[in-house]
Amino acid sequence: MASLEAQVAALTAQVAELTAREEIRELLCRYGFAADTGSAREWSQTYAPDGVYDGLETISGRASFAHAIDNPAGVHKRDIESKGSLHTSGPVMIRVRGDEAWAEGPALVWVRDEHSSWRPFSLSYNHWDLRRRAGRWAVTRRLSRPVAPGLAGEVFTAWRTAG
Amino acid sequence: MASLEAQVAALTAQVAELTAREEIRELLCRYGFAADTGSAREWSQTYAPDGVYDGLETISGRASFAHAIDNPAGVHKRDIESKGSLHTSGPVMIRVRGDEAWAEGPALVWVRDEHSSWRPFSLSYNHWDLRRRAGRWAVTRRLSRPVAPGLAGEVFTAWRTAG
Amino acid sequence: MASLEAQVAALTAQVAELTAREEIRELLCRYGFAADTGSAREWSQTYAPDGVYDGLETISGRASFAHAIDNPAGVHKRDIESKGSLHTSGPVMIRVRGDEAWAEGPALVWVRDEHSSWRPFSLSYNHWDLRRRAGRWAVTRRLSRPVAPGLAGEVFTAWRTAG
Repeated sequence: MASLEAQVAALTAQVAELTAREEIRELLCRYGFAADTGSAREWSQTYAPDGVYDGLETISGRASFAHAIDNPAGVHKRDIESKGSLHTSGPVMIRVRGDEAWAEGPALVWVRDEHSSWRPFSLSYNHWDLRRRAGRWAVTRRLSRPVAPGLAGEVFTAWRTAG
Repeated sequence: MASLEAQVAALTAQVAELTAREEIRELLCRYGFAADTGSAREWSQTYAPDGVYDGLETISGRASFAHAIDNPAGVHKRDIESKGSLHTSGPVMIRVRGDEAWAEGPALVWVRDEHSSWRPFSLSYNHWDLRRRAGRWAVTRRLSRPVAPGLAGEVFTAWRTAG
Repeated sequence: MASLEAQVAALTAQVAELTAREEIRELLCRYGFAADTGSAREWSQTYAPDGVYDGLETISGRASFAHAIDNPAGVHKRDIESKGSLHTSGPVMIRVRGDEAWAEGPALVWVRDEHSSWRPFSLSYNHWDLRRRAGRWAVTRRLSRPVAPGLAGEVFTAWRTAG
């Protein structure tokens, strides 16, 4: 039996890992809440200052992220938020190493359609790289591709290395 | 380095928080299982005795909750359960303070359609207030609005205060 | 107040439970990643060597599981993976007892349709029995039925026993 000190040290590491995963799932929730409520600043802050979105377009820099939400002529305001939208993600697999982490899993954006029902606006494969600074996680890079033939394996890569 | 006693006290608080969140996610699972299996009593017990559902209609009191599931002429039996349904929720953000908590996130009810495929019967923004009594969490109030333009910000409010 | 030793023992048990649940949710993620990337071996290994899938068909034995993914004339290659697919599951309720566990909840397979939108290929009620060997969880039996009238109660059974 390990010493009490060693047991407490092991527990501390395990609880830190569980807590970090919870925080990362929360970050993805926050991302959705900010998008659906049109909160441009909060949405931009889910990315690190040097964070990059690599999807149908490439976005980098917090001003550009905020503009993607705020721009009255942009896709978000015109085709998503103004229709009534719901951004969700997960379930995700997560691995944390110190202050860096990755997550992989789906993201789904629902919009209300003209019949007052709902349809997927986008459904995607995603890999997120994340970094913790001053106790807060943020996305440093999100690779996102639509669910389509042959693309899953381009995005879902890290899960193979997670023993 | 904190004393071993202080480390154990800190771990105890962190594990209690993680466990409470897990219990609350389970409560939402139980809510779905009870709805889809037509279990009126179990469904009503996911609400506190003074619990309130504030949605398309307002429901309060466990007898009324049970009736919402049991009533052969009601929407649940007629348009949902009898078609083949699946109630899901999440991902949710959760904050626990002692024996009270809140959760925010989506809920989605699928029903089988006439082509043996499935469509969303309802898709909603939700804020749940919860309370723990005798070790069991229950919903004291659920605010629920359909995904539609401008409603996300009326329901998703607490996430902004979660530092 | 319990002794420090007793507190650490209780924490160890709680953290082991939380960690096991996390591992089981990861196993379900891995199942989806393997399916969508067409990784037959990894997919077959989410089942125990004596694992059984009891769904629209019955599958048992790892060679048969791998064949279900690899077979060019099979449903998976022809109607799912080649269209562009996304396998998801959850939220799930989980109970762990030593090296055995169960999980209950939905599974949803999305496929891209001919209009470059997405539709559910299958939506199901599921009960998974699981076993841990050499630190790894695997499915010993999955009972799966499509979301349809009257079937929820045939599959969602264990949740009632989870106090």
